[in-house]
Amino acid sequence: MTRIVTVGGAQLGPVQLADGRASVVSRLIELLTTFFPRWFLDDIAQADHFYERSMPNDATQPLFDEAKRLGIGFCLGYALLEEKPDGTHHRWNVQSLVDKAGSIVATFKKVHIPGHELNEPGRPFQHLERYYFEPSPEGFGVWDAFDARVGMMICNDRRWPESYLLMGLQGVELILCGYNTPLHYAPDPSQDPLQGFHNQLVMSSGAYQNGSFVVGVAKGGVEEGVDSLAESSIFGPSGELLARAETNGDELIVAECDLDWCAQYKETLFDFARYRRPELYGAITDKHVAD
Amino acid sequence: MTRIVTVGGAQLGPVQLADGRASVVSRLIELLTTFFPRWFLDDIAQADHFYERSMPNDATQPLFDEAKRLGIGFCLGYALLEEKPDGTHHRWNVQSLVDKAGSIVATFKKVHIPGHELNEPGRPFQHLERYYFEPSPEGFGVWDAFDARVGMMICNDRRWPESYLLMGLQGVELILCGYNTPLHYAPDPSQDPLQGFHNQLVMSSGAYQNGSFVVGVAKGGVEEGVDSLAESSIFGPSGELLARAETNGDELIVAECDLDWCAQYKETLFDFARYRRPELYGAITDKHVAD
Repeated sequence: MTRIVTVGGAQLGPVQLADGRASVVSRLIELLTTFFPRWFLDDIAQADHFYERSMPNDATQPLFDEAKRLGIGFCLGYALLEEKPDGTHHRWNVQSLVDKAGSIVATFKKVHIPGHELNEPGRPFQHLERYYFEPSPEGFGVWDAFDARVGMMICNDRRWPESYLLMGLQGVELILCGYNTPLHYAPDPSQDPLQGFHNQLVMSSGAYQNGSFVVGVAKGGVEEGVDSLAESSIFGPSGELLARAETNGDELIVAECDLDWCAQYKETLFDFARYRRPELYGAITDKHVAD
Repeated sequence: MTRIVTVGGAQLGPVQLADGRASVVSRLIELLTTFFPRWFLDDIAQADHFYERSMPNDATQPLFDEAKRLGIGFCLGYALLEEKPDGTHHRWNVQSLVDKAGSIVATFKKVHIPGHELNEPGRPFQHLERYYFEPSPEGFGVWDAFDARVGMMICNDRRWPESYLLMGLQGVELILCGYNTPLHYAPDPSQDPLQGFHNQLVMSSGAYQNGSFVVGVAKGGVEEGVDSLAESSIFGPSGELLARAETNGDELIVAECDLDWCAQYKETLFDFARYRRPELYGAITDKHVAD
């Protein structure tokens, strides 16, 4: 019995600072705030209005309702402000996986937080993710949804082979990733013209080396003067590109994904139980990098 | 002060079963035996003549002499038969790194042994590496040579992100890899037309994700009726292709490698000490894969 999942990648064009949630939800029946780590705010609480307190909420409920009516599961990225019973606040960069009935299956917290912790006024724009978000204490999981083993990662997570591997070891078949990648990388501008190449390289190799589909969906285009990579893409377990966005605006890409294709890699070249050598991999989990 | 290493990848065309060592050494001043795991021999000792007992030896000494005379370091792959003091025999798939003075710096044993352990008569040819070779008990190392931090891997090792990562964690700048990859993969022939794509994909991503040069050198072409991938390649720490062989015969590819380019990746996006999350990577070293 074949297991075909039709995957759509809903790329969102720019969301300006003044845009409200309702307009974004109505644009693609999708929610995303502007990428606020671009600005430094002395008092982090001044950014609290960019974070969701719960999901779904009044602003996003129409998205959940419409997806349920259509019988479409989805994956949504957002900032989450969590208040613990002891009164402490936690700020997370998250994605929620939602099934066809409109129920949240899991909420994943970003593991690899890039950028910097402190304001760096010399930059043309900030990348203060390490100021605005805590890193996940939980790591990578895999869940059953849409008849598939589904994993999630967020933006910079996709550059690290460890991300794919940790899901691959849990049998992942479909990895969903939202990203928001400025084309200008201040610490080394020689990488700027390679952003599209690197984006494809890491998702393609992660797909192949774990026998999994990988879906990368951008918020691209020019937001508040900062240009970001679009090129939303779907890769097969062979690493081949199956679909890619042609514009840097609102655009839907689609691929019919036969999940049984994964086994052609998981049970041959990348039969982990047969071929991996975990007894020699110890340095990967060492807390300190050797000098 | 810039550190430029001129790297040559000496791709060897086919070596037939009847070809002797002397003719191969004289062809490229390089030693390689034919890829003998293609055949099954009931008594493994019948294959012992394919293995070296020491390195250098009478047949390969001319290569060491010529390289020393020219002041060229090199890396050489071969099969090694080791007899321990207790009389036991060990068969290894190895590469030796040789410095400009003709001295062996290190001999690396292959970690990820692909293929199968038992004769499979239904195949058009065998891939009996797991019969002919023990896997390395030592793992991946990095050594100082040619003013660089040099690592080695062999053939199938290049498909595994763990290989690059274990060298990357030791600060590798130049990874040297010999390979012998049949174009036909019996367990899943749908991968046959993708051999070149996969070869480039894994070495390019391994270079980028660790900020290292990667040099992959094939023995390509048709040996004893079996066609193997050529496409010897040199990649920069950006993942970009710097040089690639155009033929599947004897051919030298060259790139001038500025080792300081590595720091542009190792000290920014892939600053391991700052951005990795080893406390969440435990499953990578677990001995058993989860069901």
